[in-house]
Amino acid sequence: MNIVDSTITLKLPEGSSDVLLKNLYLSCDPYMRNLMNKTQGTPSPFSYTPQSVIAGFGVSKVLESGNPDYKEGDLVTLMFHYPTTPEFSICMPGITAYGGFFELGTPKKGENVFVSAASGAVEQLVGQFAKLHGCYVVGSAGSKEKVDMLKNKFGFDEGFNYKEEPDLNAVLKRYFPEGIGIYFENVGGKTLDAVLLNMRVHDRIPACGMISQYNLTQPEGVTNLAHIIYKRIRMEGFNSADFFHLYPKFLEFVLPHIREEKIVYMEDIAEGLENGPATLVGLFSGRNVGKQVLVVARE
Amino acid sequence: MNIVDSTITLKLPEGSSDVLLKNLYLSCDPYMRNLMNKTQGTPSPFSYTPQSVIAGFGVSKVLESGNPDYKEGDLVTLMFHYPTTPEFSICMPGITAYGGFFELGTPKKGENVFVSAASGAVEQLVGQFAKLHGCYVVGSAGSKEKVDMLKNKFGFDEGFNYKEEPDLNAVLKRYFPEGIGIYFENVGGKTLDAVLLNMRVHDRIPACGMISQYNLTQPEGVTNLAHIIYKRIRMEGFNSADFFHLYPKFLEFVLPHIREEKIVYMEDIAEGLENGPATLVGLFSGRNVGKQVLVVARE
Repeated sequence: MNIVDSTITLKLPEGSSDVLLKNLYLSCDPYMRNLMNKTQGTPSPFSYTPQSVIAGFGVSKVLESGNPDYKEGDLVTLMFHYPTTPEFSICMPGITAYGGFFELGTPKKGENVFVSAASGAVEQLVGQFAKLHGCYVVGSAGSKEKVDMLKNKFGFDEGFNYKEEPDLNAVLKRYFPEGIGIYFENVGGKTLDAVLLNMRVHDRIPACGMISQYNLTQPEGVTNLAHIIYKRIRMEGFNSADFFHLYPKFLEFVLPHIREEKIVYMEDIAEGLENGPATLVGLFSGRNVGKQVLVVARE
Repeated sequence: MNIVDSTITLKLPEGSSDVLLKNLYLSCDPYMRNLMNKTQGTPSPFSYTPQSVIAGFGVSKVLESGNPDYKEGDLVTLMFHYPTTPEFSICMPGITAYGGFFELGTPKKGENVFVSAASGAVEQLVGQFAKLHGCYVVGSAGSKEKVDMLKNKFGFDEGFNYKEEPDLNAVLKRYFPEGIGIYFENVGGKTLDAVLLNMRVHDRIPACGMISQYNLTQPEGVTNLAHIIYKRIRMEGFNSADFFHLYPKFLEFVLPHIREEKIVYMEDIAEGLENGPATLVGLFSGRNVGKQVLVVARE
């Protein structure tokens, strides 16, 4: 990944109905890794190809507008053109967490929820949504600092550092003696294998990511998949685009909770476009603590 | 597995409202293997424990009845006490195929369907249901005889012998150049791994079984699970009990097709209780051709 300098003219052509934007904040998200894969699904209009500019979510300021819907100084989010809110950074991770947990997880009050990579942008919200819904919630993360955050900041019932647990099956049995009801999947590999041993009949696995696998030349083998049969488990991959139709419902749910500080949100802010490549790559070693944002300019 | 001889008195106690049955036909099904596992789901009332009698589906004749709903000479199916039809052997595999394909597979006309272990009791029906629904259907099986049956008896568009295909990914690409839409999963392991590479966005995997894995001390690792994320695939384990509420709807669908010979059904009939253990074990090496039935007595 390179940063290439060039000069462009920031001026709309006469009579244009376009909008000229200046990027302020860029979002660094794990899904961006998958846009670099050739082998995945149908090609996305956002797929990355070598030597081309990468795309992502972000917040921009309108410098000039030929469109009556936008005026100079407006803040807008891309790629999906939602109007911004003061809580804009919750937009994409938020709808992902909301749709994945409520629509695919179909949680019942009192159910046991396990979230991996639990301090991440989406996952910290899943844990808080689950607590608001009356669930028992345990999260795993990759450092003591993150685990403390799960318990003290996001209100998870329990948390553990998976790097310090040689036997994931045993640790899950300790935290879920009666089994897991919903596993919000973000990592894949060994964690998924251990989870499958600890799920119950008709449990759900909303599968948001498998970040432990994306950078492996040879992905790990998951050996306990027959438990999907034994326990009639539903595992379903998804991304934010599957739930954009729920955006108004999501805002109605989440905004009052944010205003009442019942939902908090942790960001990891990196400064300067020159740090973009290292910041994006850092997601895959868990360098970020909370939602990774890159500030290009504050205004 | 042993056959134990003993003498019992075939006589109802005076005033009993019970029914005395004689077993005629016993059903040998892959799910029975899983009732021997300790590690699966919640314990089933039908779980097998060493030194106890095993349970299964079957057809029995009423010898004596203290219950007004049954009279001497009636035929009944167990374990779930549905009234029998002349097509009784389609009962359990049939509702499994019907629910798994239509409810979980949510097929659209013209979609591409792949069925593994395709000549099996459930799978031969899935293929025929898919053809009736206007789908393109390919099946895999473990012998030339079975593959011929798929194409000539059940009307599959194509079939292949997986034992003669060193590169399952390549064979799937050949039969599904535009990708698979629904994979009716019965085998797990290498086949599932190859299928995941050939699915498309929002595809479905109704997971009925993973028969290649049940007898392995160390199950094979499935390495392409991240495609569940990339392609937002829904994979869902199930068994017949999940769909018994659809039984009347299923009969309404299937009986006219059977009477018009638009659906055919192949059984593999073994004779004599003494052959029961070998017949049941034979399912796991694919010895049976079609639905395995064991005849204890013809009347």
